[in-house]
Amino acid sequence: MNTNNAKKIYEAVGAEAVLTSQYDLRQYLTGFATSFGYVLSDKNGTTFYTDPRYIEGATAALKGTGIEVKLFGGSLEEILKPYKEVAVPLDKTLYPDYLKLSGYNLKIVDSMPAFTGAMAIKQDYEIENIKKACEITDKAYVKLLSRIKEGMTENDVAAELEYLMRSFGASGTSFESIVGFEANSSVPHHETGLTKLKFGDIILIDFGCKYGGYCSDCTRTFLFGDDKKHGEFKETYKKVLEAHYAAKEKIKGGETGKEADEYARSVLRGYGLDKFFTHSLGHGIGINVHEHPMLSPRSSDILKENMVFSDEPGVYFEGKFGIRIEDTVTLKGGKVLSLTDSDKKLTII
Amino acid sequence: MNTNNAKKIYEAVGAEAVLTSQYDLRQYLTGFATSFGYVLSDKNGTTFYTDPRYIEGATAALKGTGIEVKLFGGSLEEILKPYKEVAVPLDKTLYPDYLKLSGYNLKIVDSMPAFTGAMAIKQDYEIENIKKACEITDKAYVKLLSRIKEGMTENDVAAELEYLMRSFGASGTSFESIVGFEANSSVPHHETGLTKLKFGDIILIDFGCKYGGYCSDCTRTFLFGDDKKHGEFKETYKKVLEAHYAAKEKIKGGETGKEADEYARSVLRGYGLDKFFTHSLGHGIGINVHEHPMLSPRSSDILKENMVFSDEPGVYFEGKFGIRIEDTVTLKGGKVLSLTDSDKKLTII
Repeated sequence: MNTNNAKKIYEAVGAEAVLTSQYDLRQYLTGFATSFGYVLSDKNGTTFYTDPRYIEGATAALKGTGIEVKLFGGSLEEILKPYKEVAVPLDKTLYPDYLKLSGYNLKIVDSMPAFTGAMAIKQDYEIENIKKACEITDKAYVKLLSRIKEGMTENDVAAELEYLMRSFGASGTSFESIVGFEANSSVPHHETGLTKLKFGDIILIDFGCKYGGYCSDCTRTFLFGDDKKHGEFKETYKKVLEAHYAAKEKIKGGETGKEADEYARSVLRGYGLDKFFTHSLGHGIGINVHEHPMLSPRSSDILKENMVFSDEPGVYFEGKFGIRIEDTVTLKGGKVLSLTDSDKKLTII
Repeated sequence: MNTNNAKKIYEAVGAEAVLTSQYDLRQYLTGFATSFGYVLSDKNGTTFYTDPRYIEGATAALKGTGIEVKLFGGSLEEILKPYKEVAVPLDKTLYPDYLKLSGYNLKIVDSMPAFTGAMAIKQDYEIENIKKACEITDKAYVKLLSRIKEGMTENDVAAELEYLMRSFGASGTSFESIVGFEANSSVPHHETGLTKLKFGDIILIDFGCKYGGYCSDCTRTFLFGDDKKHGEFKETYKKVLEAHYAAKEKIKGGETGKEADEYARSVLRGYGLDKFFTHSLGHGIGINVHEHPMLSPRSSDILKENMVFSDEPGVYFEGKFGIRIEDTVTLKGGKVLSLTDSDKKLTII
């Protein structure tokens, strides 16, 4: 945990006071998850106002960090009285909350750019947490392969996978695991269900876990036995994998999200498959499983050292099959380093 | 799934057009979860604008419902051009989105009251999904009791519990499961960790799952063996259970959330324990694990037939122990009917 984040954000924003009530941003500032609270920083330091449910936990967790814990008395106006100016993250501020603040006769400025910039570039302790989440993800995947049996439902496979991640130390999943058998793999956000596994089926799993409040994100597509009827799938798999590696090998620090996306997209275009690559190449990963930067045909985000994002080209043939190959990666020394890194050669179990 | 929700909300709002982009509300209108999309209703019907990832799934799911699926072209202004007035849920609308809409020269009205009112009173298919989620929750709890062993960590217990819910058919958890051993039970939102279970420990678990897009929520507190040192805990348990049942037996349709809360709070007050009951008695449960109505000392929400909410009194003694006993319940025939209903007599395993 890094408890200088509140100070860092306060200084980057440059407003008289910085008020933060959003779940993810509050976690970034305090170092732990809470469902209610206000973090308020000014020139004298930072106070975390929360409710009785969190007082004991927060007081213990923030001991010695310089962040003071206080019981929220119910009036935001009261705690903002000393100030003429307050910064809030506008992109994550609800309209009624903005209206309420407006009524307090305060100048409202935007803290969002400071958060986005700071949170996109991961500090050592953040990379360590993400690495740990990725290691758990990889270990769970390898173990899962030995546990998949004919007749299991998609839901059964998700249950095994989530159990494995939990028992390897994850605090939960990053998002609802996606498990799609055969034609269900062609739906990028397929709802994991009761379809039963048959010999020869394609299996697509998109999954991730949380460790220390940080996410991993990984997708693998593989075969449950070889029924010799999946020739087209096997050929296409190689092309998607080539696109995945093209991005990994070519992306350099300082490039845009658009340039990054194009490395993978141009490979698929060369095979006439780009029209089936219906989403972006990737997205930032941290406290949120989707955050800054975006790697897409429209993104002008600049990729920088210690950013963490996904590399996930995919192609989808409606009613037939889909393939997506995704790793969580980071930029180190200007080059891509894979954080999830289980085997990506076509696996037939 | 009920596909008249879009029509119902449109009619309740009474605006020229109703635009909905929020995750939970969109799920209410379309009947399934998506991470991106706009639902737009007007006098001619409803259109679901989404991105390529969901087109195949949405088209299949909404076939025959009258909701048309279209690819979102990227411009909200374009799809709102035909209208002079649009309703959005203000309480769930981000400030920048409100600003953007304001720029389109539209009169903006609020759809939130229509959603809150409609979603709080569950329809038959919604109750069925919640019931199913609650049955899974109960089954998982009973099975879990036989699997808890000395030396397991809180995280191990959460892993077992979540695996059991998944394998009984849940699509995931309603929230990150809370497992607290002994003194950790005194932190209402304890972060499940690596504390190991010892003979005689108190175990508090707060957990729930999702089925068909709907949540359950349940808490049990019990003992792992009887070390004869938990006399105060046992005495206090009976009082919390009395408060739990007082609410269940006395709450009637037409009462306020404040009156409901008071049934439990007054029992604890009689024992001088009300100052340790540091949260509300309950909250509505549906697509979201926290929604309307609130059952708290300040709530004027009226409890009505077919609402679903939690009954969860709790007391917490910092550094010693905590007790919370929670069921998901509904109002049927003006009285409380328990949907989670596993044994609440003090369990010693």
